[in-house]
Amino acid sequence: MAAATPENLSLVVHGPGDLRLENYPIPEPGPNEVLLKMHSVGICGSDVHYWQHGRIGDFIVEKPMVLGHEASGTVVKVGSLVKHLKPGDRVAIEPGALREMDEFCKIGRYNLSPSIFFCATPPDDGNLCRFYKHNADFCYKLPDNVTFEEGALIEPLSVGIHACRRAGITLGNKVFVCGAGPIGLVTVIVAKAMGAAQVLVTDLSTSRLSKAKEVGADNVLQISKESPKEIASKVEGLLGCKPEVTIECTGAEPAIQSGIYATRSGGTLVLVGLGPEMTTVPLVHAAIREVDIKGVFRYCNTWPMAISMLASKSVNVKPLVTHRFPLEKALEAFETARKGLGLKVMLKCDPKDQNP
Amino acid sequence: MAAATPENLSLVVHGPGDLRLENYPIPEPGPNEVLLKMHSVGICGSDVHYWQHGRIGDFIVEKPMVLGHEASGTVVKVGSLVKHLKPGDRVAIEPGALREMDEFCKIGRYNLSPSIFFCATPPDDGNLCRFYKHNADFCYKLPDNVTFEEGALIEPLSVGIHACRRAGITLGNKVFVCGAGPIGLVTVIVAKAMGAAQVLVTDLSTSRLSKAKEVGADNVLQISKESPKEIASKVEGLLGCKPEVTIECTGAEPAIQSGIYATRSGGTLVLVGLGPEMTTVPLVHAAIREVDIKGVFRYCNTWPMAISMLASKSVNVKPLVTHRFPLEKALEAFETARKGLGLKVMLKCDPKDQNP
Amino acid sequence: MAAATPENLSLVVHGPGDLRLENYPIPEPGPNEVLLKMHSVGICGSDVHYWQHGRIGDFIVEKPMVLGHEASGTVVKVGSLVKHLKPGDRVAIEPGALREMDEFCKIGRYNLSPSIFFCATPPDDGNLCRFYKHNADFCYKLPDNVTFEEGALIEPLSVGIHACRRAGITLGNKVFVCGAGPIGLVTVIVAKAMGAAQVLVTDLSTSRLSKAKEVGADNVLQISKESPKEIASKVEGLLGCKPEVTIECTGAEPAIQSGIYATRSGGTLVLVGLGPEMTTVPLVHAAIREVDIKGVFRYCNTWPMAISMLASKSVNVKPLVTHRFPLEKALEAFETARKGLGLKVMLKCDPKDQNP
Amino acid sequence: MAAATPENLSLVVHGPGDLRLENYPIPEPGPNEVLLKMHSVGICGSDVHYWQHGRIGDFIVEKPMVLGHEASGTVVKVGSLVKHLKPGDRVAIEPGALREMDEFCKIGRYNLSPSIFFCATPPDDGNLCRFYKHNADFCYKLPDNVTFEEGALIEPLSVGIHACRRAGITLGNKVFVCGAGPIGLVTVIVAKAMGAAQVLVTDLSTSRLSKAKEVGADNVLQISKESPKEIASKVEGLLGCKPEVTIECTGAEPAIQSGIYATRSGGTLVLVGLGPEMTTVPLVHAAIREVDIKGVFRYCNTWPMAISMLASKSVNVKPLVTHRFPLEKALEAFETARKGLGLKVMLKCDPKDQNP
Repeated sequence: MAAATPENLSLVVHGPGDLRLENYPIPEPGPNEVLLKMHSVGICGSDVHYWQHGRIGDFIVEKPMVLGHEASGTVVKVGSLVKHLKPGDRVAIEPGALREMDEFCKIGRYNLSPSIFFCATPPDDGNLCRFYKHNADFCYKLPDNVTFEEGALIEPLSVGIHACRRAGITLGNKVFVCGAGPIGLVTVIVAKAMGAAQVLVTDLSTSRLSKAKEVGADNVLQISKESPKEIASKVEGLLGCKPEVTIECTGAEPAIQSGIYATRSGGTLVLVGLGPEMTTVPLVHAAIREVDIKGVFRYCNTWPMAISMLASKSVNVKPLVTHRFPLEKALEAFETARKGLGLKVMLKCDPKDQNP
Repeated sequence: MAAATPENLSLVVHGPGDLRLENYPIPEPGPNEVLLKMHSVGICGSDVHYWQHGRIGDFIVEKPMVLGHEASGTVVKVGSLVKHLKPGDRVAIEPGALREMDEFCKIGRYNLSPSIFFCATPPDDGNLCRFYKHNADFCYKLPDNVTFEEGALIEPLSVGIHACRRAGITLGNKVFVCGAGPIGLVTVIVAKAMGAAQVLVTDLSTSRLSKAKEVGADNVLQISKESPKEIASKVEGLLGCKPEVTIECTGAEPAIQSGIYATRSGGTLVLVGLGPEMTTVPLVHAAIREVDIKGVFRYCNTWPMAISMLASKSVNVKPLVTHRFPLEKALEAFETARKGLGLKVMLKCDPKDQNP
Repeated sequence: MAAATPENLSLVVHGPGDLRLENYPIPEPGPNEVLLKMHSVGICGSDVHYWQHGRIGDFIVEKPMVLGHEASGTVVKVGSLVKHLKPGDRVAIEPGALREMDEFCKIGRYNLSPSIFFCATPPDDGNLCRFYKHNADFCYKLPDNVTFEEGALIEPLSVGIHACRRAGITLGNKVFVCGAGPIGLVTVIVAKAMGAAQVLVTDLSTSRLSKAKEVGADNVLQISKESPKEIASKVEGLLGCKPEVTIECTGAEPAIQSGIYATRSGGTLVLVGLGPEMTTVPLVHAAIREVDIKGVFRYCNTWPMAISMLASKSVNVKPLVTHRFPLEKALEAFETARKGLGLKVMLKCDPKDQNP
Repeated sequence: MAAATPENLSLVVHGPGDLRLENYPIPEPGPNEVLLKMHSVGICGSDVHYWQHGRIGDFIVEKPMVLGHEASGTVVKVGSLVKHLKPGDRVAIEPGALREMDEFCKIGRYNLSPSIFFCATPPDDGNLCRFYKHNADFCYKLPDNVTFEEGALIEPLSVGIHACRRAGITLGNKVFVCGAGPIGLVTVIVAKAMGAAQVLVTDLSTSRLSKAKEVGADNVLQISKESPKEIASKVEGLLGCKPEVTIECTGAEPAIQSGIYATRSGGTLVLVGLGPEMTTVPLVHAAIREVDIKGVFRYCNTWPMAISMLASKSVNVKPLVTHRFPLEKALEAFETARKGLGLKVMLKCDPKDQNP
């Protein structure tokens, strides 16, 4: 796989702690694929985790893998069967692309397809590189008034959309969001856009809570040593009633417990944060009040609606980006992300265009 | 039952064209009722219609009836069983109040209950008066930061909420609203609040369309002699695709037809405007594209969410009020409403407080 | 209202282990109530529990309470406001009766109303007696071809209906039911009636599993020392695939765990059995496969559909009744129920008619 | 690709009235396709219509087209990418097969995909032949205890499933089915399987109504000259209340009108039969009672559940087949179908196995 010239600089994880910028060949798109010149790729916590630990749960980096899955770029070549895209089109990339038309795909829940391709989940390569090919059906054209970075941010935004949609958020809802990290923040943005009247966010960090207010949270609550029941009680006090919806974005057992205690009878608790294998929770407390507990696995059917929202300026994700690095400085960028400085670190893959 | 002093000035329709300000006794609340000192009551098209024609469909004014059902006021007396309200509470009034716990109530669709009491629908009296008693379960306390007029406007807003909810509007939707009268406008406001990316409104009148833009419409289209198919085509052109949802607020047959042609396969057409007894429509065109056709009858479960939205400033209904008259000048106010001058004419029933 | 003669024999629990047949006065129905001559009342596990322990969770028998809530009888007197019933009507009794029109009632989930009256839940008296008065809105007329005992069995059947409805069982589903006690059995009956293609039931007891087959289970699996994951694996093997729906009717922690492991991605686990305050479960295993976890609290809107099903002979609940005792032998009946002999023990309250 | 011997006898329509048995080459399956030896193919009304009229609406037979889309057969060859099927597998064929992963596919409503392939809809060939190739993702393996004819009947059964599912039929429903032709009958079968308590069928023909009773209808009503309102009134009388669901299978304007009048407030009218381009209906009568009007276009996600139901003997479609002809006598078979003799005419394509 030797290339004569450094034609496709790629960020590759080889194992725990082993992250390298390497030159890869430029891939050739298949009949239903497009070749993309990458523009902006955000760093996700999972990218950092694969770098640090070489695995997430059962997903293990067993061979070198290109990182990156929050991405946008420009079509440079299209496969023979591709009709809806042409070279020059600016696109956002949905990192999960179906490999087969199985039962989950047919019912519209393709995120649950066990054979799905997913960028930067072993063994599938991601798109932190100069050139990347992807299933054309999962590349979505960006309107002129949506930037590449907004396009890349559709990926984390999609987590918020899927969580809020699974929660059934509707007009006038009171929503409790546990955790003000990137996912907590996109959840706030989406919840407000879906008509939530009041969104309350909890976190340990005042700076994160400030950001939550900046993106639209109506209330924030800094927590420290409260018990889950105490947190639930404070949430009710601040909102004036129990929230219809709680979206848990930390994965911490006490936070899940507080989510169960806090949610109104007949409401929904959505688990976005992933906790330990076994969790001890007051399940009966949820059951007899008909508080439904729902998880989310990635997302489906979110890119078109996210693009519509961005195009109409109905949501603003720009405040999420706090750092930018050229692809050549990817290791520095990952170090920044690892330290938890700022929110979203964006890598700029096109040496000729480092704009947002 | 003559009262010695003019204690409860009320606006009473006696038959077609016969509208009178009369003195009524102050009613006594029953065990589950509250007596309200009325503050703000909006004039609805149906009020004007009962005055002009003495009937709407099968609902006929057969004995004198107090008009008014878009209302708010202050509790002055509570029945023996009332727990959640006390004198001094400012409340918005849901005009439909259940008389019996029937099958429709039990499943949460109480608006369909055939025995429901409804203000200013014969033979039930409305609340365009100084003092009015109402079922306490259908009076909702207003927070301090919601004005009486906003409270009164919850009634038309509820029509928009119920229509948008029946339409299943969700994040990123393109929505086509036919008609920019008061109901079209509240539909625009609610559709945007529920996350619609683009709302396009059609009307014959430029001034109405200007108001639509003012309250949040993204696109407007003035129509004149276009055929239903031409309108559908223009709507698709302006939105960039067919809308998932169409909300028809005129009741005109050509508008209903354009709604069927315009709506995307798998989408929903909601009929809010009421047309003729029999309507000729391209039903098969809707059927084979699985465009669902749904009507709305009033609303249910809208006051609490509307109050939440108003309290959190998530929606702004204030631009709807264009005229105000004291109750003593109700005939002049109705004349203004009849002429179609402005949008919402508000009657101020409390001689000591004529504020919004 | 002291009665000279023992006119209303009632079964009263006074505290743990203290169950007495006593004479109570015949109550007088209020305006919206009916007085019923009781006919058939089934003994529920909760009745036995109140007798044995004097409490269930936070519900404590602090004053003498009449037991019984699975009941049917004949109207003998109607309140002044009652329109849909008249003396002589045979009715089934929904034991939960609303006391106020709160938010839960208005949205059609009245079972969640915190102020609801509920037969034989402290401090509300049940209907194991000769004469009983009840809110007329929660008494449903039985057709001639539905027996009193079928009418009484609508209560446990309702638990199955509510669970299957919350599970969203639909045509062709594979359903896993944990536990073949009375609730497991009604769940089997309802799941089949809703179109489940295959229902598999697990239990420790062969005799219970035989009954499960008798009422319609397609597969049964006797479990002994298998781990939760082993049970899940056996369930998948027997059904040929993972079930879309699991309905857990035991409350045992390992059973809940097996329910999570067993359910298909995107499916639903309904918790009917009540376990300990805190439960340790593989929550993340459910979350990332989008297996929703839903509890049930009693039921709502089930009597009319149950009566329709019984009238059309679409379900058969008669095999559930294994013992019958006249009300005078209630203590013996409760002893039979306590010992777990048979399934449903029915008390016959009308000395002149002990027929089913 | 000329074949030396008549290897693939096929029934081809060339234009109005011009139906021929011709020899076609045996096709070669593509990478994601399977080649099938056809076994049983039912004749649908649309097949007869294409033969008689050369078109259905905008679908015009412009070049010779093989008829047939209610089919089952045996895999004889699999494409290189096919994993879930192997030669010898008996399969039922879903005639609609996706050509692209568009928005409708992604949300699970692939029947609405405008580019879908569909057997025997111009210009796509059907499977009334000896050998046929099809997208493997839309071929479903039949269990041993499901016959080929049952497999072929999944197609009409799917229309009933999709209609009943769109109607939201649930436990205890009263259902009104207009029309007792093949689609009306499968609707009856499915409605009962989904838990409908009472299904009432109307038709002009006594013999059709007898068949409706045979397959499970609880009530039948022969209509002659009644007005739509009179029919609605009789339906209510026979059911004891208005039906929650009406499924209209005739397409006749008066029947659609009677469906609107008949359906209970808050219920659903599903239009399966296709009527004229423009239809005159009491739309306002549906709208103000919130009777939703929904159409169906073919079906999606029905084969797996239909196979489950057939395998578990939960539905019985065998009574639908009244005639059988070998493929060689296809013209005679079509003549039988055209005359409306019997219900379902089945063609047997395998000369060595003419069993059901």
